[in-house]
Amino acid sequence: MTTTFPTTTAARHLLALDWGTSSLRARLMLADGTVLREASSADGILSVPAQGFETVFEQRFGDWLREFPDTVVLAAGMVGSRQGWVEAPYLACPAGFGEMAAGLVWPMPDRRLAFVPGLSTTHDDGAPDVMRGEEVQIFGALDALGADEGVFVLPGTHSKWAHVAQHQVRRFHTFMTGELYALLRRQSILARAMPADDTAPAVAWPAQREAFLAGVQAARDGVLLHKLFSVRARGLFGQLSADAQPDYLSGMLVGEEILEALSLLGTRDPGPIHLVCNADLCDRYRGALAVFGLQGVPAVDHASFRGLLAIAHARALLA
Amino acid sequence: MTTTFPTTTAARHLLALDWGTSSLRARLMLADGTVLREASSADGILSVPAQGFETVFEQRFGDWLREFPDTVVLAAGMVGSRQGWVEAPYLACPAGFGEMAAGLVWPMPDRRLAFVPGLSTTHDDGAPDVMRGEEVQIFGALDALGADEGVFVLPGTHSKWAHVAQHQVRRFHTFMTGELYALLRRQSILARAMPADDTAPAVAWPAQREAFLAGVQAARDGVLLHKLFSVRARGLFGQLSADAQPDYLSGMLVGEEILEALSLLGTRDPGPIHLVCNADLCDRYRGALAVFGLQGVPAVDHASFRGLLAIAHARALLA
Repeated sequence: MTTTFPTTTAARHLLALDWGTSSLRARLMLADGTVLREASSADGILSVPAQGFETVFEQRFGDWLREFPDTVVLAAGMVGSRQGWVEAPYLACPAGFGEMAAGLVWPMPDRRLAFVPGLSTTHDDGAPDVMRGEEVQIFGALDALGADEGVFVLPGTHSKWAHVAQHQVRRFHTFMTGELYALLRRQSILARAMPADDTAPAVAWPAQREAFLAGVQAARDGVLLHKLFSVRARGLFGQLSADAQPDYLSGMLVGEEILEALSLLGTRDPGPIHLVCNADLCDRYRGALAVFGLQGVPAVDHASFRGLLAIAHARALLA
Repeated sequence: MTTTFPTTTAARHLLALDWGTSSLRARLMLADGTVLREASSADGILSVPAQGFETVFEQRFGDWLREFPDTVVLAAGMVGSRQGWVEAPYLACPAGFGEMAAGLVWPMPDRRLAFVPGLSTTHDDGAPDVMRGEEVQIFGALDALGADEGVFVLPGTHSKWAHVAQHQVRRFHTFMTGELYALLRRQSILARAMPADDTAPAVAWPAQREAFLAGVQAARDGVLLHKLFSVRARGLFGQLSADAQPDYLSGMLVGEEILEALSLLGTRDPGPIHLVCNADLCDRYRGALAVFGLQGVPAVDHASFRGLLAIAHARALLA
């Protein structure tokens, strides 16, 4: 693999790819962000065979690139991992637009296709931590907000809390909140007393808010491994209905995440927290943060595409 | 269901049943504990159909009872739950031998067959907690030790920490340690970098001790939801071999359990901790407790059978 910079890079169009574990989202844009084409599919890296990325790429975007030959392609997310198309090594924090742009990996010198590196950090105890894909969302949020500092929270399967200063991601922490929720909700003893996952009525979030916030409250004294079992015990004793249990559990895990993050940030008052997530999830996290006396501010939609556009500009890839 | 006491109870033999979720263990004893018959099978309550308990009981023990007609039967464990043969309601703490013996449920007045109740407690935050089966092990350990107080720890799928004073279980806390380990080790993203569960070499525990104790150490600052991800990240960066990851994860969860238990006990120095578990698991917990400066003392083997015998004597069921 080479990182040789293509001889001709400047282009009029950007094809931004947010290619993750379970989905592929794409946007063809002009330099000013005007969207010309947009697509998404379930071609996440888990569903693409090891040698199949080139084929998927050609099938999905070949026509676009022939229609707009003056296009540069930036791909972010797990597509740049060891299990993806081309491995783009992790870039150590602190890292900003400049470092990200300089760290782009161009594996095929004759093509204007680059992979965005993920970020790594090292914690006080020597443990490394990694993100891949979220860094682009953070840069997109920074660009959209015109901000250069703050705490950015990206809830999800592996939630990230990133501390940004001077336009750089200084450090971040990962929390296995979403994955633990899915495991406990679907496969643990707690699941047995809950409605079946796929038959649960699609109750609007406001109706579930109370159970969720009670779970957040329950997490505030930090004994998660013990408190988890109380979901079952409260159910046995009629204190918590089956319908309310999933949200109570969700609140407990999100509350634990916030408690731990505050401990790791070393402050109870980190200022406004920029939430990068979809509206429903942001609403949950805003409610949970309020329990801790914190303000959660939803940051921006489509942060990945904004981030890739900003990185393209930082590298002067767009004419 | 009736709890009418049989007209004739005093017998010369005790058939003690430890009938749990995944196994059935039985011992036919004389009043002095002499073992006449012993058996175990995989007829846990999960593998017995709702109306099938009578049939399994007759198949396994019909011959014994015909051979020793002067027998009283005590059944403990999940067989006495709502999903079992006959529900024996939870008995509220504090509870000692007397309360346990008085709380036996005799569903069939013409038969000398009783179900041992589980125990419940209510925590400071109003959450209930329950155990079913472990209480008999605690009473067995108390009987064997000739003790009437202490902290009793029963590691497992749902670990229990019980505070005993004046020969009574005063309160206890459950921790979902073992279940969380199994879920994370087999089904989470962490599992992907570990040896397959069923192909892992049966390495002797001493060889794995170092990774386990490193995990315990890592848990000491109480940010579990974050630290879990470090198992993967340390693997990615070559700090932790695939072989060492399961034990490191195990240590992290056991360390978190101890940290939380000390917080809930409200003391950093609860005195010697009586461990009720098999030798391998006790060895792990002793090592983990030592990291916290605590002394773990393995309590007794076959605690369930001893406990059922002690309860039978407390009720004067044995001639």
